[in-house]
Amino acid sequence: MARTAGSDGERTLAAIRQSALSLIARHGFEAMSMRQLGERVGVQPAALYRYFPNKEALLFSLMEEHMTGLLASWEDAKPQSADPSERLAAFVRNHIHFHVERRLSTHVNNMELRSLSPDKLTHILRLRAAYEKELRQILRDGAEEGRFRIEDVTLTAMAIIQMITGVIAWFRPDERLSVREVAHNYHIMTMRLVGAG
Amino acid sequence: MARTAGSDGERTLAAIRQSALSLIARHGFEAMSMRQLGERVGVQPAALYRYFPNKEALLFSLMEEHMTGLLASWEDAKPQSADPSERLAAFVRNHIHFHVERRLSTHVNNMELRSLSPDKLTHILRLRAAYEKELRQILRDGAEEGRFRIEDVTLTAMAIIQMITGVIAWFRPDERLSVREVAHNYHIMTMRLVGAG
Repeated sequence: MARTAGSDGERTLAAIRQSALSLIARHGFEAMSMRQLGERVGVQPAALYRYFPNKEALLFSLMEEHMTGLLASWEDAKPQSADPSERLAAFVRNHIHFHVERRLSTHVNNMELRSLSPDKLTHILRLRAAYEKELRQILRDGAEEGRFRIEDVTLTAMAIIQMITGVIAWFRPDERLSVREVAHNYHIMTMRLVGAG
Repeated sequence: MARTAGSDGERTLAAIRQSALSLIARHGFEAMSMRQLGERVGVQPAALYRYFPNKEALLFSLMEEHMTGLLASWEDAKPQSADPSERLAAFVRNHIHFHVERRLSTHVNNMELRSLSPDKLTHILRLRAAYEKELRQILRDGAEEGRFRIEDVTLTAMAIIQMITGVIAWFRPDERLSVREVAHNYHIMTMRLVGAG
C-alpha cells in the first residue's frame, strides 16, 4: 500500500474504509463480516470497533462520506457564472470525474441503501436530495430563460443523473477513451437532451 | 398468492423464482441461504434442489430468464419499419415497460454479475451484448442516414440504456406519472439526445 500522510490511526482508518468498500462491493454488505474485514486490513476485529461501534455505523460512515464529498466537490466545481449551460456543463463534468474516481464507493452507495435503518436512510436520502436539487435548479433556470427545452424537470434530472452515473458500470481507465473524453462526450449528449443550442 | 396456471411443480418453481428475486434484491445473493429461501416459499430446502442443483444455478437461471425474456420482448416489439426513429421509439418504450414490470429481477441482474462463475458470466454478458447490439444498429442506421447526430455509437448506446434502465430506481406505479407517460417522456428526451428532428 502506498504510504499515506497522517497518524497510524488515520492510516488504519483509511485502510478500513478502503477494504470495507471493496468487500461490500464484491460480496454485499450483509455477507461481509467484521472478522473478514479485520483479516483484510490486517487488524483484530476488536480494533475495528475502536473506529466503528458496529457494522451499520461503518456502512453509514462510508455512504455519508461519499455524499458529503460529492456535495463538497460540486461546491468547488460550481461556476461563478449564472449561465445555465455553463453550470450544466460543470455539473456533468464534475459528476463523472467524481464517480469514476470512486467506483467502489458509488456501487456501495447505489446498492446498499437497503441495508440502512430508517433514520440513517433518511439522512443519506436528504443529502442525495440536496445534490439533485442543484441539478433541478440549473434545469429550471435554463427552461425559464428559454435556453433549455424541458418537459418535466424532475424526470429530466433523474434521466441525466442515471445516464452520467452509469459511466462507472463500463468505464475503465485503460479504455480507448480517457475520462476527460468520456465526460466531454456526455456533456454534448446532455446539452442535446435538454435542447440547448 | 394469486392462483397461477400450470401444474403444482410449475407453481412451486414460479414461487421459488419470485421469492429468490425478492430475497436477493433485499439481502444480496451471497447473504441469501437456501434454508431461508425454503422457509419463504414454504418448502423443505431439499425440495429446492429438485429444481436447482445449487444456489448459483438458481441465480444463473434467474438472470438468463431475464435476458432471454428481454430479447424475446424486443423481437415482439420491433417494428417492421426500417425507420430509425420508429425503431428507437419502440426500443425505448419496450425497454422501460419490460424493466418497470420486473424491478426486482432488474436489480438482481444489475447487482449480481459479481456472483457468477466465469463461464456463466460469459453467457449472460453475451446475451447483454446481443441486446445492446440491437440498439447500436439502430443508432448506426440513424447516423448513416443523416437522421441522428451521434459522436460515438457505443457511448450513446450505453448512455441511453443507463438512462432508461434507471427509471426503476425511482418509478413506482402509484407515482404522479403512469409508466406510459414516463416512457413517452423518455422517448422525447432520447430523440433529442440523438439529435433527431
